[in-house]
Amino acid sequence: MKHVDHFLDAFFWPDSVAIVGATNNPFKMNYRILENLANLKFNGRIYPVNSREPEILGFKTYKRLQDIPDKVDLVVMAVPASKTMGIIEDCAQTGVKHTVIVTGGFSEGGEDGKRLHRKIGAYVKERGIRVLGPNTLSPVNTSNNFVISFNPVKKTRRGNLSFAFQSGFYDPKIAWIFSHLGISKILDTGNKMDINELDALKYYSMDPETRVIAMHIESLHGNGRDFFNLLKSVTPRKPVIILKTGRTRAGSRAAASHTGSLAGENDAVFDSAIRQAGAIRAQTLEEFFDLAKAFSFLPLPQGDRLAIITLSGGEGVIATDACEANGLKLATLGTKTHETLKEIFPRWEIPLNPFDGGVCMEFHLEKPEIIFDTLTAIPKDENVDCAVMQMPPNFFYILSQNKETPARESHSPSERYIEMILKMKRSEKPFALWSTSMDRGEMEIIEAIESHNLPVFQSPERAVKALAEMARYRRRTRMADRTN
Amino acid sequence: MKHVDHFLDAFFWPDSVAIVGATNNPFKMNYRILENLANLKFNGRIYPVNSREPEILGFKTYKRLQDIPDKVDLVVMAVPASKTMGIIEDCAQTGVKHTVIVTGGFSEGGEDGKRLHRKIGAYVKERGIRVLGPNTLSPVNTSNNFVISFNPVKKTRRGNLSFAFQSGFYDPKIAWIFSHLGISKILDTGNKMDINELDALKYYSMDPETRVIAMHIESLHGNGRDFFNLLKSVTPRKPVIILKTGRTRAGSRAAASHTGSLAGENDAVFDSAIRQAGAIRAQTLEEFFDLAKAFSFLPLPQGDRLAIITLSGGEGVIATDACEANGLKLATLGTKTHETLKEIFPRWEIPLNPFDGGVCMEFHLEKPEIIFDTLTAIPKDENVDCAVMQMPPNFFYILSQNKETPARESHSPSERYIEMILKMKRSEKPFALWSTSMDRGEMEIIEAIESHNLPVFQSPERAVKALAEMARYRRRTRMADRTN
Repeated sequence: MKHVDHFLDAFFWPDSVAIVGATNNPFKMNYRILENLANLKFNGRIYPVNSREPEILGFKTYKRLQDIPDKVDLVVMAVPASKTMGIIEDCAQTGVKHTVIVTGGFSEGGEDGKRLHRKIGAYVKERGIRVLGPNTLSPVNTSNNFVISFNPVKKTRRGNLSFAFQSGFYDPKIAWIFSHLGISKILDTGNKMDINELDALKYYSMDPETRVIAMHIESLHGNGRDFFNLLKSVTPRKPVIILKTGRTRAGSRAAASHTGSLAGENDAVFDSAIRQAGAIRAQTLEEFFDLAKAFSFLPLPQGDRLAIITLSGGEGVIATDACEANGLKLATLGTKTHETLKEIFPRWEIPLNPFDGGVCMEFHLEKPEIIFDTLTAIPKDENVDCAVMQMPPNFFYILSQNKETPARESHSPSERYIEMILKMKRSEKPFALWSTSMDRGEMEIIEAIESHNLPVFQSPERAVKALAEMARYRRRTRMADRTN
Repeated sequence: MKHVDHFLDAFFWPDSVAIVGATNNPFKMNYRILENLANLKFNGRIYPVNSREPEILGFKTYKRLQDIPDKVDLVVMAVPASKTMGIIEDCAQTGVKHTVIVTGGFSEGGEDGKRLHRKIGAYVKERGIRVLGPNTLSPVNTSNNFVISFNPVKKTRRGNLSFAFQSGFYDPKIAWIFSHLGISKILDTGNKMDINELDALKYYSMDPETRVIAMHIESLHGNGRDFFNLLKSVTPRKPVIILKTGRTRAGSRAAASHTGSLAGENDAVFDSAIRQAGAIRAQTLEEFFDLAKAFSFLPLPQGDRLAIITLSGGEGVIATDACEANGLKLATLGTKTHETLKEIFPRWEIPLNPFDGGVCMEFHLEKPEIIFDTLTAIPKDENVDCAVMQMPPNFFYILSQNKETPARESHSPSERYIEMILKMKRSEKPFALWSTSMDRGEMEIIEAIESHNLPVFQSPERAVKALAEMARYRRRTRMADRTN
């Protein structure tokens, strides 16, 4: 259980876990908690606690925590708020030191809820019992497939990215997260009775499996100075992406009501503090996931020079605007690259950056694979620090129809298409795709591409913005290195 | 053919069309042009021109335009640039007055291409032949299913939205467009040898089928003053959404190279001119499609008061921030609505706006349909001008499993779910959904929902931004009404 020598080890790496409120009724949310652990083959010992059922999903159940004949590292409670105090007392009695309260209805639950929150809070503090939540859907650790969720999770995907949320809003997205991102850990601090964002940041900063940290924050837990000091020490080693919500007065009131947290930092003050601490602020929910994906999938660009490959001049213009607007520079490709690309030019000279692969394709439909092989010269060019390419939505169709390169038996068109695309990654420089037509058929291809750590963004602007933030981070950390 | 008494009638409503360069070879891009017209049952007469094939896709072919025993309203040319002059001469000889040049390689195609562009341009001008393109993929008219595209189009969808593009970049997205938007017409002006954005705007302003206009502009065709004057006269009657690309110096150079247009308006000048003319400027490609969808699907809000319904407090905070940041106000719901909503409260009082339907659901899992019926009170509240709701990703699952409301034989879970959602629309006020987990399975549901003109946006920020732009437009046009 000991991994980074921090009390959160017990939450991410429990050897034994009790699920209080486990149920055999698939119509209840709680059913998913045990079902997921069973389906995902969580590799610890599982003890469902239920007073009526002898067995749930093949696991022997126990009427009370006291009946479990084993040391329990972590107790996950999903019982009505009113019953939680009793379970906490059972924890104290059996020596359980780590608990997760999934249920809501505490500090956000009217006067009764607030009273209960204070009562349990005082009780656990006195006895040294650590509490995650209440009102949390987590933890998640993909290394041992310990996943606490209300939504069915069929697979996880390991990666170097760890999230901290201050809301369960990520939970309905969990299947999407595992289809598009590589995850190490997720912690939802919920109503923060005890464990808060400072603990999460501390753990992730020490965790060797976490290379990129993404934090959703609604309010700081009255520990602003500690948080910013820690943040400042983490960001030179690990990029920290922050989505701060409750920015406006109305938003901060809404935040206060749903997790019971105090509203209040002035947004401009918060903004300047996290920037000084070297964190990256995501402006929107989409940008939060975009940046998390980019930083976790890609190496940092070694400079500001961007190459753009399009399949439509129109989107090339948009990408170029985004390049200049976000402080990147259009790379000037070298003469050697020019010689290589000339092979696939139409009958006339075309600009090298943005490079319109579409016009090449249109005039050389008979050799789509050669066109792709040629395009790999662009990210390899020594004047290029990073590159983006429009994902050709119909190219796999053309490719599959091409008579000169018949499909191999074992390869479906999209597999061959994905192979082509992956060749672009070989330069060891950050390379990203964008695709603006999110057809259902294409989603499958995007998932497959992203499973190779090649990010696909939903617009040219978003692809360029992500690379620009990476270049900015690289520049800043390098400057900080020099000053130290 | 005469519809709005404008020469573009011949482009949108040809009774007879010749496709020069039609082919029997499905490996060629051109194949799609005829295939689409056949599949979509374009209701005009079709004459493929091909010197070798006697028949293509069941249509009798003709060796030359001269051989067609009918008046041809429109000639669509998809032949190599070098052969275009000859076809244009054939047009002149047979009295054809309206032509579409699909092929690229003219003003963007090096010195030879530029020379050819000028030569054909002078020739057609002298003879009064109108040219769309070169380098265009259009027109599209869903009323007669006249669709010129390089991509397979299996269905169209009629609506009140008309697009003008200055690039074929929309074409690979055409299937997505027809799955998510209701379209009247599309015109891609390409290299603008003759027909330009002013013609498109003029036509759409007169077209009774077009209620919302969305224009992608890379550069104005040296007709800025005329364009802005026309724009000003159109915007009080029909909203015009503009995506101006080539905003930066590098972007405008890129624009010049791919359609051969002159670079050049200063972006700030352009920006202020279109705003003065009452048009709505989309800041990104995604926003362009978002706004086009919102304006074409929804009635205008009669005021600024927004109601937010979430299924996660966290996304409610984000929507609330977006509400305040975009100049909308959180609506204060009336006491009657409060009484109604109390029925589905958890055990405690919760704020009405943003309203957390998720916490209600969590505490009343046995009555999901009642919860939805109750939520319809929110958009109906007299203090609400517009409403947004988070689309519950897993709700259809819960709903389908509910024992008290067994699935009717003929209804799949998602059909019942969609029925529930559609109830929210009954207030006749603008109502939009957002969904941030774009799973493959969910895309199908989103398509079904959007087929009922209920827009689904990909984030809370984007849903709120779209409604805010509509409220702003409404305010501005109302003010303009008063001043006149």
